[in-house]
Amino acid sequence: MSKDTYPHLEALRELMRSKHIDAVIIPGTDPHQSEYPAEHWKFRDFVSGFTGSNGTAVVTLDEAGLWTDSRYFLQAEEQLEGSGFSLHKEGVEGEPTTLQWLGEVLGEDSVLGIDGRLFSLVEANRIEMFCAQNGFMFAPDFRAAEAIWSDRPARPMNPAFVHDEALAGEDVGSKISRVLEVVEEAEADGLLVTSLDDIAWLFNLRGSDVDYTPVVISFAYLSEYERVLFIDSEKVTSEVEDHLKKYNIRVRDYDDIEKYLGKIRDSHTVMLDPDRVSDALGQAMICNKTYHTSPIIALKGVKNESQIEGFRKAVLYDGVAMVRMMMWMEQNVANGITEMDVDRRLQQERATFESSRGDSFHMIAAYKDHGAIVHYEATDESAYTLEPNGLLLIDTGGQYLEGTTDVTRTVSLGNPTEAEKHDFTLILKGHLALSRAVFPKGTTGVQLDVLARGPLWQEGMTFFHGTGHGIGHFLGCHEGPQSIRMQINETPLALGMVTSNEPGIYKTGEYGIRTENLILCVPACQSEEWGEFYKFETLTLFPYDTTLIDMDMLTREEVKQINAYHAMVVERLSPMLNADERLWLKEKCKEINL
Amino acid sequence: MSKDTYPHLEALRELMRSKHIDAVIIPGTDPHQSEYPAEHWKFRDFVSGFTGSNGTAVVTLDEAGLWTDSRYFLQAEEQLEGSGFSLHKEGVEGEPTTLQWLGEVLGEDSVLGIDGRLFSLVEANRIEMFCAQNGFMFAPDFRAAEAIWSDRPARPMNPAFVHDEALAGEDVGSKISRVLEVVEEAEADGLLVTSLDDIAWLFNLRGSDVDYTPVVISFAYLSEYERVLFIDSEKVTSEVEDHLKKYNIRVRDYDDIEKYLGKIRDSHTVMLDPDRVSDALGQAMICNKTYHTSPIIALKGVKNESQIEGFRKAVLYDGVAMVRMMMWMEQNVANGITEMDVDRRLQQERATFESSRGDSFHMIAAYKDHGAIVHYEATDESAYTLEPNGLLLIDTGGQYLEGTTDVTRTVSLGNPTEAEKHDFTLILKGHLALSRAVFPKGTTGVQLDVLARGPLWQEGMTFFHGTGHGIGHFLGCHEGPQSIRMQINETPLALGMVTSNEPGIYKTGEYGIRTENLILCVPACQSEEWGEFYKFETLTLFPYDTTLIDMDMLTREEVKQINAYHAMVVERLSPMLNADERLWLKEKCKEINL
Repeated sequence: MSKDTYPHLEALRELMRSKHIDAVIIPGTDPHQSEYPAEHWKFRDFVSGFTGSNGTAVVTLDEAGLWTDSRYFLQAEEQLEGSGFSLHKEGVEGEPTTLQWLGEVLGEDSVLGIDGRLFSLVEANRIEMFCAQNGFMFAPDFRAAEAIWSDRPARPMNPAFVHDEALAGEDVGSKISRVLEVVEEAEADGLLVTSLDDIAWLFNLRGSDVDYTPVVISFAYLSEYERVLFIDSEKVTSEVEDHLKKYNIRVRDYDDIEKYLGKIRDSHTVMLDPDRVSDALGQAMICNKTYHTSPIIALKGVKNESQIEGFRKAVLYDGVAMVRMMMWMEQNVANGITEMDVDRRLQQERATFESSRGDSFHMIAAYKDHGAIVHYEATDESAYTLEPNGLLLIDTGGQYLEGTTDVTRTVSLGNPTEAEKHDFTLILKGHLALSRAVFPKGTTGVQLDVLARGPLWQEGMTFFHGTGHGIGHFLGCHEGPQSIRMQINETPLALGMVTSNEPGIYKTGEYGIRTENLILCVPACQSEEWGEFYKFETLTLFPYDTTLIDMDMLTREEVKQINAYHAMVVERLSPMLNADERLWLKEKCKEINL
Repeated sequence: MSKDTYPHLEALRELMRSKHIDAVIIPGTDPHQSEYPAEHWKFRDFVSGFTGSNGTAVVTLDEAGLWTDSRYFLQAEEQLEGSGFSLHKEGVEGEPTTLQWLGEVLGEDSVLGIDGRLFSLVEANRIEMFCAQNGFMFAPDFRAAEAIWSDRPARPMNPAFVHDEALAGEDVGSKISRVLEVVEEAEADGLLVTSLDDIAWLFNLRGSDVDYTPVVISFAYLSEYERVLFIDSEKVTSEVEDHLKKYNIRVRDYDDIEKYLGKIRDSHTVMLDPDRVSDALGQAMICNKTYHTSPIIALKGVKNESQIEGFRKAVLYDGVAMVRMMMWMEQNVANGITEMDVDRRLQQERATFESSRGDSFHMIAAYKDHGAIVHYEATDESAYTLEPNGLLLIDTGGQYLEGTTDVTRTVSLGNPTEAEKHDFTLILKGHLALSRAVFPKGTTGVQLDVLARGPLWQEGMTFFHGTGHGIGHFLGCHEGPQSIRMQINETPLALGMVTSNEPGIYKTGEYGIRTENLILCVPACQSEEWGEFYKFETLTLFPYDTTLIDMDMLTREEVKQINAYHAMVVERLSPMLNADERLWLKEKCKEINL
């Protein structure tokens, strides 16, 4: 496949020569800094042949490199074969970064080009500083895709739709007012919004332009006097039109954004998030700019009562789908089913719910040593056939109109080993400790992270991903502003935030274990003397595999906690299940004792 | 007493009128931003009558306020009686800060004065910005103490002495080289050092100019070409003179510092720490300045092998002194001894060791409800008489040539109540959890803090001080750069750092409980897959009061940990004790069982 892309690299170099560009950096994102861009923006894939979700291509007139992380080393090696690109392994000691490498290979007075629409202001500024320090010229408007990508896929033109106000729990007028309050406090006149999930939340709009996240490709501008949505007119159904009209939101063409911003008077001050707004849009504005983290992130992160009720429904649907998939899997584990079959079966089960809108991310069904590959995605070629032994790690989530889910379970398909049980129990202990934490108002994720990692740390082990990420409401599966991880994030855990709790352990060549529930931040207690305390309520409903527990490693408190959780799972899921399913679940959730 | 200070306030106002100053802020520190300034700098006490360790006075032509925190509310109320000052309670909701208050009471074009020698550059800058925003004039050189403080105590003139290189573990030449490396990396030519503990560490010099911390009042300037110590010549003994000569350190008069800095050529760049260097010194310099946290803080925080050996000796001496004091106390608890007697007795016991140099901070011996006053300091007037019941909290530390100690124990004087045992055990559980933590290299204190607080948090309680602070080596009892607390501190816990582990709980009107050991960061294990892990080794040697443990609240792991610690205490201390003392300690350390 990749050899097919070599002519694209050649075409790019020809264009570079004609434009006097000596090097170009091509990222894997879109003008909205999206995690999952649409095909239309996969120019890096077009030039290099590499299709992973994280990767940056750098092309000079006689060299070409692709930088990606350890998840994609194997895939990149295969896909880059014959492409003219060499692989650069991010995070491997001694490997230069893209800029360090450019600093080495480029001569003085070289011209470094980027397409400024695909870099945030912060990133572009960093590259510009690098150029200045190295005596390079910086060309931030080298737009190669338009020139050489002949069969470029069109921008997705799927219809948008209105997310029911009853489900969103707040009307657009109220959201706009709350956002504009922040803008006014910062003494700005307007706000530019370019992140797709921010726009979806703000206008109660959803779509299906990209995989997994129900967003609509668009930009938005808000001020006291104007509310404008920049969107391809094909997407604006009459329902959407009426909805926008109701809130005085004007529709303009998606491509008008640069021109529109360029006309904002220089007496005005526009707030924008330099980590999210592209360099091209930032440069298009002659008005004053004030840099500020998007105020929508904080508002969107705190879920209201309707949203929380929605999450409770979504985890119910998801729990039922998981029960049905797992029962089917257990019955067929000796019949030659594969990781891919598990994936497909769960999608089928989810689809039986009316409000289901597909998966919230590419499911991970990783058997045996595939489980140790943290972001493993099975394909028909790679998929293992299941057998009645070993561990299967399933990390999956669904989109429902009522909410977004994300759950991980690791199950034994038979005859668990002592090592499997030991590691599973370590992870479970950390997962349980975090979920039963009580903490004062104002606590941040970095303060609680050790609760989940502690049992591993005590044995000199750890995991190299975060413990918890926020999750959107029928939106992105990863969402800010809070997190629970080793890295500092100053956002306190606030009432109404939904976060994942997912410690894991990965034994290369053997297995991976991860256990994940969504947890909601709720009040715990308060007193005049000590102040307010919060705790977590577990939302996710599916049993832990008790055959993998080493009972000698548990305390009485932990046993009680597991039994209480399992009792809740049975109580909530049973009314949705048939008699067989209820029996199966009851057996999985039966009390454990020291 | 305070009525006596009213004429001082009047004299200050007369001076203000003559100098056209409308308001003045008077802090409680010295030109070195010391935690414990010498009497010479207690101008705030002179004007207001308030003697607490934390407090800021603000005086206008017709109002005067004193700001302090909850530790000192009672004391301040008494001391400010008749002084002309009203008390402003820091941390109480609705109470304005000093600047907010000035913003309210001062009219436009008012002149706000400070003595710039007593404010760091950062603080002075903040006040200057405040003045600019409010239309006030800023007078940073209003030096009132010289003008109106007629019976001002002289600067302390105690002789300095050399801290033995064998104890310090590194000679001055090596220290200077390491410091200058950082200065050079930052492309600076010189370094101004104004913190007394930084200078003491750098030059292996000690003194007795201030209480509790063996520092010498001085300034230092270092560059590739010059090493200058600014110090009163009375302090320079012939031993010190020889020592300084050996390392080519020139001596100049303490008062020459401003003049000297003013002559550094404008082509030079001097590194200085804007949180530690005074505004007056900063302003005196016409050369370039580069702001950088004092490089000495990081170097001083990591103890070398000789220092660690020294700490092991210091905790041995301190443990023996504690054993002897506690035995004496138990024998005399019904004989009318007071908190002050306990304090004096421990000082006597410490003084029997040749290398003892007094206490490292004002001892807290707090009986019953006095224990709930976090920084209670007994006086002959306030001291309770002990009885054979209730809790006694003792927080104390010693200075030894080999190291500095800091230990807290809470003991029952008889018939512990269920509530006392419950709370004591909660604190002990947190203290033990932190001390047995294993964590990856790079971990910071904020990540571990929950281990100590967790048991309290689970019951909706907390404590409002840090869990752990660094400690100096025969230097300050509080030292950076690391800490273990709820607040973010980005300094990782590094091998060789010594930190306190001191969770507490305070029940107003009833009792206070705190348990504190010093813990040393040491290697735990490492592997190619997971990297390096560290753990803590407990240095402090003194038993926990097992009569206060509620055994039902402990896990098997915790019981094992307590027994192992007590076995170590017996093993290390016994060789220093007589037969009676050994018996007493053995009884205190006898095994506990679930």
